[in-house]
Amino acid sequence: MEKLDQKPTITSIENGSVGSAKGFKTGGMHIGMRTKKPDLGWIYSEVPATAAGVYTTNVFQAAPLQVTQESIAEEKKLQAVLVNTVSANSCTGQQGLENARVTRQWLAQHLGITDHLVGVASTGVIGMQLPMEKIKKGIAAIDLSGSEAPFEEAILTTDTKTKHLAVTFEIDGKPVTIGGACKGSGMIHPNMATMLGFVTTDAAVAPDALKQALKTIVDKTFNRITVDGDTSTNDMVLLLANGQAENQPLSAQHPEWPVFLKGLEAVCQGLAKFIAGDGEGATKLIEVQVTGAKDNQSAEVIAKTIVGSSLVKTAVFGSDANWGRIVCAMGYSGEAFDPNHVTLKLGDLILFENGVPTPFDEQQAKNYLDEDSIVIKASLGEGNGSAVAWGCDLTYDYVKINASYRS
Amino acid sequence: MEKLDQKPTITSIENGSVGSAKGFKTGGMHIGMRTKKPDLGWIYSEVPATAAGVYTTNVFQAAPLQVTQESIAEEKKLQAVLVNTVSANSCTGQQGLENARVTRQWLAQHLGITDHLVGVASTGVIGMQLPMEKIKKGIAAIDLSGSEAPFEEAILTTDTKTKHLAVTFEIDGKPVTIGGACKGSGMIHPNMATMLGFVTTDAAVAPDALKQALKTIVDKTFNRITVDGDTSTNDMVLLLANGQAENQPLSAQHPEWPVFLKGLEAVCQGLAKFIAGDGEGATKLIEVQVTGAKDNQSAEVIAKTIVGSSLVKTAVFGSDANWGRIVCAMGYSGEAFDPNHVTLKLGDLILFENGVPTPFDEQQAKNYLDEDSIVIKASLGEGNGSAVAWGCDLTYDYVKINASYRS
Repeated sequence: MEKLDQKPTITSIENGSVGSAKGFKTGGMHIGMRTKKPDLGWIYSEVPATAAGVYTTNVFQAAPLQVTQESIAEEKKLQAVLVNTVSANSCTGQQGLENARVTRQWLAQHLGITDHLVGVASTGVIGMQLPMEKIKKGIAAIDLSGSEAPFEEAILTTDTKTKHLAVTFEIDGKPVTIGGACKGSGMIHPNMATMLGFVTTDAAVAPDALKQALKTIVDKTFNRITVDGDTSTNDMVLLLANGQAENQPLSAQHPEWPVFLKGLEAVCQGLAKFIAGDGEGATKLIEVQVTGAKDNQSAEVIAKTIVGSSLVKTAVFGSDANWGRIVCAMGYSGEAFDPNHVTLKLGDLILFENGVPTPFDEQQAKNYLDEDSIVIKASLGEGNGSAVAWGCDLTYDYVKINASYRS
Repeated sequence: MEKLDQKPTITSIENGSVGSAKGFKTGGMHIGMRTKKPDLGWIYSEVPATAAGVYTTNVFQAAPLQVTQESIAEEKKLQAVLVNTVSANSCTGQQGLENARVTRQWLAQHLGITDHLVGVASTGVIGMQLPMEKIKKGIAAIDLSGSEAPFEEAILTTDTKTKHLAVTFEIDGKPVTIGGACKGSGMIHPNMATMLGFVTTDAAVAPDALKQALKTIVDKTFNRITVDGDTSTNDMVLLLANGQAENQPLSAQHPEWPVFLKGLEAVCQGLAKFIAGDGEGATKLIEVQVTGAKDNQSAEVIAKTIVGSSLVKTAVFGSDANWGRIVCAMGYSGEAFDPNHVTLKLGDLILFENGVPTPFDEQQAKNYLDEDSIVIKASLGEGNGSAVAWGCDLTYDYVKINASYRS
């Protein structure tokens, strides 16, 4: 266990994941949607858990997202979640919606709980209906006492690594755990960058507070990453809190609410960075830190614009300290600022100071850019606004993965 | 000459360019900024021409754009324009601004005209000062009676083709010509997608009308293209009208004003499509036609979002009719619409109708996508708004060009 912070003490759990919190079980299996790899995952809580979700803003919101929202709307609780790969069940019309409801019902029946305690999530090709027979057999084989594959493995598509994390800290003197797992961009039939995140905690949290906490934290973690600028129809992050830690229910009134938020941010930020660093074809994680903006919102827009620039991403791939592209991206972000107060650093190397190019050691810059993780620091001298955003480089493999034919 | 339209009769001029209109001379030469290729271009009008410009919205507006605006501000006229490659003279501080003014002065002296009748434009690496000695020698060698290279060739960087066009039509019963040349994305030291466009006409046009016409037409031509979403610090389109056609000065009050606008649109749209189709690494021109949007502005946002999507661009490169990516991009455009009324076509092949996937012949779609020029048609059933946007596919060569080291 690594101590992440001094006060409050939030420690990470080795190999922690979405099943680390008390009272949660998770698993995965291979049901033949993919050739060999696990392709169906599930999460189960021993008791109904207070639930909150954030969903894609895409007008074409996929069927499972609609059905999960229907479930949570009933009593703000979920007890189980089913995740399938291969078909995104998006743009599939009335039949897709009906199929999502049927798979929800199958899992509810298998677990002996009511339908609306089940959430569903999908990732895969848009416009393809769910392979219902395979999913039916898969659900029938779910065994809460053990599973053939880890959940975090069963939800992957073209991800090259599993992405999971958990932290623990104390609330009311009782140990509380928050754990999560997610998938990033790409599919075995590459189609779109679908992001799914699942976070569980054994903390007791009031429903509205949970929803607010998730929205706040997602805005500065998952919503700060980009791989290719394409917002999926299936993006969803679910947060389940089952109260098994037996703390006093948390809300903004609880003195230790900031501790819970800090823990939740640690998990969501960690997962978000895993996704950015494992973007399709990526070889490097790019972190952009903007400070001195007129406000935080302005800083966020600028940070996201830099990390989303194709020219910045290709320059990082080529280890080229072509800083002009970075200031260029700042300049077209839509935010107003005085170019003469802009300073830019690559790690700790100053490239541009108060609007004027600075002589720098090209080799030193190149060596830094050859690392796996790159930090770009831009300061504006306009105010106290700051923000961080994460992304990855743009490589031949991104084009390869996404230019290949679906079949 | 090809007849472009019946009424008004606008005909294109074979091999027409920015020097086609009466009283304009243009040229280019090699002054040693690039290894071998022509790298300095000039435009000259026998008499001062009414001038209008549109300039990048990037906060870091390059020095030559500032100096050209200073020139035009004096009496809304230009008589000559100088264009250098290799250095963008952007983010070069006070020295860069001073250098731009000095090159302006050199050309004015060489031609025997006042400074403020000269406009300057640059394209190249950001943060690099102009090679003043080379430019000085180049200007001294400018000969209005002939030149060693065509203007449209001398302004190119990594462009693979020259981009030029001219049309002719009648105003007040007198022949009028509008011609243009431009450069697109990429440089010999690839750095950013700099777009420069130069349009000349022998029509007599009132200054304010000229400015308004340029803004209106650029909004639906040059501002509808994207190669990689990165807005340069150096983008500029200049329009010079020298009145040598001897028509009555044009403005909105002139009965044939719409004819002039149509001619100007034909030139600007043609040049814009040349740039999109010759984007860095591009193998195909993509045209997106959006109809049935709630208004034209909404249609424009949706069309630009589709043509800017990395996933749509890679799918077109791979000739993959992965239509889910197109509707996904529409969905995250930020525009509200009912997904159930959306219909999508690839050329004339229907892929998605009223929100539901349509079975289609994959091979037929693939054959269509193998062509050089692809048309994507999206209709929304919300209203009468329509717009067209142009872009190109995203290829290995885009990554290759932009990942390579500057030096």
